[in-house]
Amino acid sequence: MTRALPSWNDGPAREAILRFVASVCEGPDALPEEERIAVFDNDGTLWVEKPVPTQLHFVIDQWRAEVEADPSLKEREPYRAAVDRDDAWFRRAIEHHHAGDDHDMDLVMDAILSTVSDRRVDEYHAEAMEFYRRERHPALDRPYERTVYQPMHELLRHLEDHGFTCYLVSGGDRDLMRPISAEYYGIPIDQVIGSAVGVEYDADANELRYGGRFEIIDDGTQKPVRIYANVGRRPILAAGNSDGDLPMLRYTTRSPRSLGLLIHHDDDGARGDEAYDIGAERALREADEHGLVVVSVKDDWSEVLPDTDAETETEPGERPSPQQTPSGAP
Amino acid sequence: MTRALPSWNDGPAREAILRFVASVCEGPDALPEEERIAVFDNDGTLWVEKPVPTQLHFVIDQWRAEVEADPSLKEREPYRAAVDRDDAWFRRAIEHHHAGDDHDMDLVMDAILSTVSDRRVDEYHAEAMEFYRRERHPALDRPYERTVYQPMHELLRHLEDHGFTCYLVSGGDRDLMRPISAEYYGIPIDQVIGSAVGVEYDADANELRYGGRFEIIDDGTQKPVRIYANVGRRPILAAGNSDGDLPMLRYTTRSPRSLGLLIHHDDDGARGDEAYDIGAERALREADEHGLVVVSVKDDWSEVLPDTDAETETEPGERPSPQQTPSGAP
Repeated sequence: MTRALPSWNDGPAREAILRFVASVCEGPDALPEEERIAVFDNDGTLWVEKPVPTQLHFVIDQWRAEVEADPSLKEREPYRAAVDRDDAWFRRAIEHHHAGDDHDMDLVMDAILSTVSDRRVDEYHAEAMEFYRRERHPALDRPYERTVYQPMHELLRHLEDHGFTCYLVSGGDRDLMRPISAEYYGIPIDQVIGSAVGVEYDADANELRYGGRFEIIDDGTQKPVRIYANVGRRPILAAGNSDGDLPMLRYTTRSPRSLGLLIHHDDDGARGDEAYDIGAERALREADEHGLVVVSVKDDWSEVLPDTDAETETEPGERPSPQQTPSGAP
Repeated sequence: MTRALPSWNDGPAREAILRFVASVCEGPDALPEEERIAVFDNDGTLWVEKPVPTQLHFVIDQWRAEVEADPSLKEREPYRAAVDRDDAWFRRAIEHHHAGDDHDMDLVMDAILSTVSDRRVDEYHAEAMEFYRRERHPALDRPYERTVYQPMHELLRHLEDHGFTCYLVSGGDRDLMRPISAEYYGIPIDQVIGSAVGVEYDADANELRYGGRFEIIDDGTQKPVRIYANVGRRPILAAGNSDGDLPMLRYTTRSPRSLGLLIHHDDDGARGDEAYDIGAERALREADEHGLVVVSVKDDWSEVLPDTDAETETEPGERPSPQQTPSGAP
């Protein structure tokens, strides 16, 4: 028999997961399957978010194309940084955001809005698919599909095998994750919860287009709210890695029959995951108080990223997932 | 072998459904299961909405309790109408709304907000469950579970048997439908889309409560928007019964491989469904133009409501559904 969660080292985190799953699935007190709800943050929880999140790579590509069409944009941030490949500017914007200064992040958010505003949702979906087919992670030089943490992929399958329904609950753009959620994570498109620009129905054209404002910023205290709006139940398992996940983790672990996992990025980088606490200081400080299980990348994971041997055999977008083929256009 | 859709008469509507389902599920051009998305309006499509929608019965009960606690409320509408059991006032409010005059409907909406504001979502869920256990449809004198149109129940099961995923997309309160969607319709709680008062996370109490404004009014042009937000794909089958369903029907039937059903309430009332066109005038007028299949309650349905013989055997809330047990508290 294969060892469950093979990329997890023996230790308190793996043990807590196996014990929890057994406790809610076995015996006379087993929970019915519809109550086995698990929620996962995405960036830094299910896949690598350093040096810059996938989302930023995607929008930087779009901004570079916009500057080609309109060179005057280059006089402003974040367009200049996009064209100059000044990743340090973006990293600083994220760090300043975590420190409470949103000046540069506001420029980023405005530019994201400006890029998607008035675009048809199906066009955006197709562009996102094309991005994943074409691009590789800039630092790891591998397709984005292979930046998914191998132990978390195993955890998703382990939960699924035990009757859980898993949802993605990300601060990132919902519509950038949906095209690959089934293929990369085995999470169906309608179980993806995330930030979103409001969509409008154009009755004359009978089409859906993005409007000019964010409808949802799915972070912090909004995560429990969006879980309730989309799922309708309190989860019994949550996994996150940052202060923005703390409300979701607390909301989930309010029940005694629950498990909250906090991924701690404490590895040295040699296996593909940077060491960082920034943006997670409070969550790490309060983990004990809220009964969270801290997962050490260094100590709890024997492998971090999937083997790349199989990479040349298939291309992202071509390989059918075990559960679903890649989603069609909306 | 049992005849498919037994409560549907032979005729163009039944034939269109069977032909469509076969065409997307069989042969080399069959659509993958994840693209077999069907969306259903609720009031007047899946269950009886006359003389007043279930939702109104529920809030009237709540307002009567509020007046008992604060008799001064009775000087105002809709509290007076609630206490006096003046259903005609509510019917007029709905008719005026369809005619473009929202004066009384605004009073109703404000009172709904005032009733739920600051309440915990799990308390509301429990009250809704209790309502369905306790109350009977006032005109039909039967439990609400047995006001579900039998032919539509059969259609939901037929679609499910053919790999479809069915969503409820209602203008009514999402959180009043969720407690019974699995039991009454076989539709899981996370496939319920509807109008909703915004929810807020109270970090100190680690609880979710309703705020003081509607976040979503899931009607008209908002229906395609909410479908996209929750499902992420364009449905291939939609069923509705009113002008408020027309954008959802048009959005769905834009694709040539799709089916739009418009339930036409043209029966004489003897079988439990009133005859009415109010609120559906435009949809009926434009049905041909948009290629919708009009379902005549009179001609296409051999039975309208389920047999009540089995009623005494079980109580709502006790009977496990074929798919799911009733949902737990959120």
